[in-house]
Amino acid sequence: MNRTSGELARHLGANLEGDANLLLSGVASPEQARAADLIYVDSPRHGARAESSAAMCVIAPPRMRLRAKTIIESSEPKLAFAKAAAWLLPRATPAPGIHPSAIVAPAAQVSGSACIGPHVVIEDSAVIGEKSVVQAFCFIGARSRVGAGCWLHPRVTLYAGSRLGNRVELHSGVVIGGDGFGYVFGEGRHWKFPQVGEIEIGDDVEIGSNTAMDRGSLGLTRVGSGTKIDNLVQVAHNVQIGEHSIIVSQTGISGSCTLGNRVIVGGQAGLGERCHIEDGAIVGGQSGVLPDKKVRSGQIVWGTPCRPLDRFRKQFAWLERLPELAARLRRLESGPLKEDRDCS
Amino acid sequence: MNRTSGELARHLGANLEGDANLLLSGVASPEQARAADLIYVDSPRHGARAESSAAMCVIAPPRMRLRAKTIIESSEPKLAFAKAAAWLLPRATPAPGIHPSAIVAPAAQVSGSACIGPHVVIEDSAVIGEKSVVQAFCFIGARSRVGAGCWLHPRVTLYAGSRLGNRVELHSGVVIGGDGFGYVFGEGRHWKFPQVGEIEIGDDVEIGSNTAMDRGSLGLTRVGSGTKIDNLVQVAHNVQIGEHSIIVSQTGISGSCTLGNRVIVGGQAGLGERCHIEDGAIVGGQSGVLPDKKVRSGQIVWGTPCRPLDRFRKQFAWLERLPELAARLRRLESGPLKEDRDCS
Amino acid sequence: MNRTSGELARHLGANLEGDANLLLSGVASPEQARAADLIYVDSPRHGARAESSAAMCVIAPPRMRLRAKTIIESSEPKLAFAKAAAWLLPRATPAPGIHPSAIVAPAAQVSGSACIGPHVVIEDSAVIGEKSVVQAFCFIGARSRVGAGCWLHPRVTLYAGSRLGNRVELHSGVVIGGDGFGYVFGEGRHWKFPQVGEIEIGDDVEIGSNTAMDRGSLGLTRVGSGTKIDNLVQVAHNVQIGEHSIIVSQTGISGSCTLGNRVIVGGQAGLGERCHIEDGAIVGGQSGVLPDKKVRSGQIVWGTPCRPLDRFRKQFAWLERLPELAARLRRLESGPLKEDRDCS
Repeated sequence: MNRTSGELARHLGANLEGDANLLLSGVASPEQARAADLIYVDSPRHGARAESSAAMCVIAPPRMRLRAKTIIESSEPKLAFAKAAAWLLPRATPAPGIHPSAIVAPAAQVSGSACIGPHVVIEDSAVIGEKSVVQAFCFIGARSRVGAGCWLHPRVTLYAGSRLGNRVELHSGVVIGGDGFGYVFGEGRHWKFPQVGEIEIGDDVEIGSNTAMDRGSLGLTRVGSGTKIDNLVQVAHNVQIGEHSIIVSQTGISGSCTLGNRVIVGGQAGLGERCHIEDGAIVGGQSGVLPDKKVRSGQIVWGTPCRPLDRFRKQFAWLERLPELAARLRRLESGPLKEDRDCS
Repeated sequence: MNRTSGELARHLGANLEGDANLLLSGVASPEQARAADLIYVDSPRHGARAESSAAMCVIAPPRMRLRAKTIIESSEPKLAFAKAAAWLLPRATPAPGIHPSAIVAPAAQVSGSACIGPHVVIEDSAVIGEKSVVQAFCFIGARSRVGAGCWLHPRVTLYAGSRLGNRVELHSGVVIGGDGFGYVFGEGRHWKFPQVGEIEIGDDVEIGSNTAMDRGSLGLTRVGSGTKIDNLVQVAHNVQIGEHSIIVSQTGISGSCTLGNRVIVGGQAGLGERCHIEDGAIVGGQSGVLPDKKVRSGQIVWGTPCRPLDRFRKQFAWLERLPELAARLRRLESGPLKEDRDCS
Repeated sequence: MNRTSGELARHLGANLEGDANLLLSGVASPEQARAADLIYVDSPRHGARAESSAAMCVIAPPRMRLRAKTIIESSEPKLAFAKAAAWLLPRATPAPGIHPSAIVAPAAQVSGSACIGPHVVIEDSAVIGEKSVVQAFCFIGARSRVGAGCWLHPRVTLYAGSRLGNRVELHSGVVIGGDGFGYVFGEGRHWKFPQVGEIEIGDDVEIGSNTAMDRGSLGLTRVGSGTKIDNLVQVAHNVQIGEHSIIVSQTGISGSCTLGNRVIVGGQAGLGERCHIEDGAIVGGQSGVLPDKKVRSGQIVWGTPCRPLDRFRKQFAWLERLPELAARLRRLESGPLKEDRDCS
C-alpha cells in the first residue's frame, strides 16, 4: 500500500519541504534505502549520510535542509519515524478462521474475526478476542482470556486462567502464568507453597521471546498497560509492574517486587524480593537490588548492591586508583617516620 | 471437595481452638480470603491482618488468639499452611488416555493410567509411568523414561534417553538433555567434543519454565531427589546436584560442577566449571564462583569472585567509604609535612 | 558401525602402537569405558586412570606408553578424540520424508532428502535444503531459508525471512528472528521502532537450547560461520558476530554490538549497545562491557565495568585488603601525629 510524502506529512501533522507526491513504500537506514524508502536523521552530524542515501524523503529536524531531498520536519525525528513506519507498514493480519489442525475445546469462545493457527490448543472456557492472532503451537489454558487485537507468535503458553488485555504481543516461547517458586522447608524436604494466584497483563504490552512470568502465589502478578519486556526476562510471583515501563533482556524480578510507571530496568539486572522501584526510576544493567530495598522516584542506581549512579562512579574511580592509594600509604608509612628520625 | 477445620487439624496433627465444623474450600491471603478460605499468620505482628480477614479459620502459632476466628495451632504456621493447601486442593488429574492428535511410536510404553495431551510426540522405546500427565506439544525422545505421577506442562522437550524419577514436575518450555557446550579448537575451527552422556532427574524434582539442562558429555548430568530449580536456569553437562537443593532463577551452573544436598543458590549466580558447593552452603544472588573453587559446607558466600558474606560486607563497607579514605590520606600527605616543617 | 583401531589411526593420520585390529564401537571416559570404547589422556598425570580403564585403545601424547593398551599417538589428544568421536559415531539421520501431521505450505520448497518431523509447520516460500532434519513442533516462517545438512531439534522457531547456512544445528526452544527491543518514548507512551530487518546465520553454527536471537531493526543481525552459541543467550537486533567465536550460556549481547572472529565471551556476560569486541578478544564470565566500549584484539577483560584482567586482579587484591589499608591509615593518623607532638 503505497502512500505519498504529502499524506505522511499530514498523518504526522508535520511540515513538508519539497515534493508532496513522492511514493513511499517502506522504511530503511540511509545506507540500505531505495528511492521509495523513508529515512530519518536526528542531528546535522548525520546530514551527509542522508544526502548520500538513495532515499528521496527524509524526516529531519526543523530547518535542516538536505540536497535533493524532500524533508518532513519534526522536532523528534526518531519518534516521527517510528510513527511513520507503523502507518506505512501496517502488519498484514492473516485471514480469520480456525486452522483445521487446531484443537479448540467446545466451551472456548473464539471471536469470528480471530485467526487461530495450525496445531494450536485452546482449552475449556478460554476466550479469544476480536481480530486476535494465535500462531502455531500456542497453548491457551482453561479459562484464559486473550483480549482484542492481540498477537501471540508461535509457541506461547498461557497457563490456565491467565488474562491478557488488548493489543498484547507475545513473542515465541513466552510462558505466562507458570507456578511461582515458593517452598517451605520442613521435615527434611521442601513443601510447595500454594501457587494458586492469578496473572494479568494490561493493554499494549509486548513481551520478548522465551520470557517467563509466574502467576501470583495467593495474590496477583500484574503488568500495567504500555509496558515493554524484552527476551529471556524472569518475572516471579506477585510482582506488580506499572505502566509504560521498560524491562531489558535477561533481567530477573523476584517475588512481590513492585515497579512503578515509566521505570527502566537495564539488562541482566536482578531485583531482590519485595523491592520497590518507584515511578521513573532507572536501574542500570547488571545491577543488583537487595531485597526490600526502595529505589526512589527519578533515582538512577547502578552496581551490586545498587547505589545512586554518582556515588557508584566516585567509588569505582577510587577502586581503579586503589593500587596507587596503597603505594601512597606505603610512602607515608616509611617517609614521615624517616623525617621524624631526621628531626629527632 | 470441601473439608472441615476439624479434619484439617487431624490431618496436620495439630490442636484446634474453636469450631471444628467450618467448611474449608481453599487457601488465600488474609486480604483476599472469603469465609471458607484458610489463611495463616506466623507472627503476632500480623494478628490484625488476620482478624480483619473474612476467613473463619487461621493457622497460627500456639497460644495466639484471634477475635472470632477458629485457630489451628502450629509452631511452623507457613509449613502447616503449605501442607494444608496440598491437602485441601489436590491437583485435578485429567482423565487417562491418549489424545487422538498425539503421535506415539508403536514401541513406546505408555501406562494406561497416564494422560497424553493433544499434539504430543512420544518416540520409540520411551516409557511413561502410571498416572503421569504429559501436556500438549511435549516431545519425549526415544528411550526416555518418565516415572510415575509426573507432570509435564505444555512444550517440554526430553532429548533421547533422558530419565525422570517419580512425581517430577517440568514447567512449560523446559529442555532436558540437550547437547553440552564443549568444543576443541584446532585447525582454525571448533570441533565438537562428543556429547553422548546421559541425564537423570530424581524423584520430586520441580523445574521452572524455559530452564535448560544438558546431558553429560561422556558421563552423567544428575539432579537428586527433592531439588527445586526455578525458571530460566542453565545446567551444563556433567553437573551433579544433590538432594533438596534450591536453585533460583537465571542461575548458570557450568560443566562438571558438583552441588551437595540442601544447597541454596540465589538468582543469577554463576558457577564456574568444576566448582564444588558442599552440603548446606549458600551462594548469594548474582555471585560468581570461580572455576574449581570449593565452597565449604554451611558457608555463605557472595560477590564476584565470591567471598564469605562477612568478608564481603566488610570490604564493601570500606568500598563505600573509599572517597573518604582517599581524602584522609590526602590530608595526611599535606598535613604532617607542614607540621614537620613547623617543627624543623 | 564398528571400525578398527588401525582404521582410526589412518583416519587421524596418527601413529599407532599396539593392536591395529581392535574393534571400536564408541567413546567414553576412562572410568565408564567398556573394552570397545575409545578413551583419551592428555597428560601423564592421568596415565593411571587410563591404565585401570577397561578400554583397550587410548589416544595419548606421543611416546606415552600405557600397560596393556593400544596407543594412538597425538600431540593434541583431546582434539584427536573429538575427531575420532565424530568419525566413530556419525549421527543417525532419520529417513527422508514429510510426516503426515506436518503442515507444509504449497509454495514451500522442501528437499526430497530432508526429514520433516511430526507437527512441523512450514510456511509459504520457505526453503529446506538437502538432508536437513526439522524435528517436531518446529515453525519455519514464510520465506525462511534452511540450508543443507541442518538439524533443527524439536520446538525451534524461525520468524519469517530468517536465513540459515549449511550444517547449522539449532537446539530445542531456539527462537531466530524475533522483533528487536526498540521503542521511542513520546506523548506518554512507547512507540515501537520498526523491526523490519533481517537475520542470517552462517555455516556450521550451533545454537543452544532456548537462546533468542532478534533480527535487525532496519539492518541485519548476522552470525559468522563456525561460531558456537550456548543455551539461553540473548542476541539483540543488528548484532554482528564473526566466525569461530564462542558465546557461553546466558550472555546478553545488546543491539548493534560487533564481535570479531575467534572471540570468546564467558557465561552471563553483558555487552552494552554498540560495543565492539575485536578478533580474538576474551570477555570474562559475568563481565559487563559498557555501551560503545571497544575491547582490543587479543585483550582479556573482566569485571563490571570490564577492565583488562591484570588490572582487575590488582584492584581486586587491594579491595580484599581494604580493611587492612584502612587500619594502617588510622594508625598513621594517630601515630605520627603523636610522634610529631613528642618531637615538638
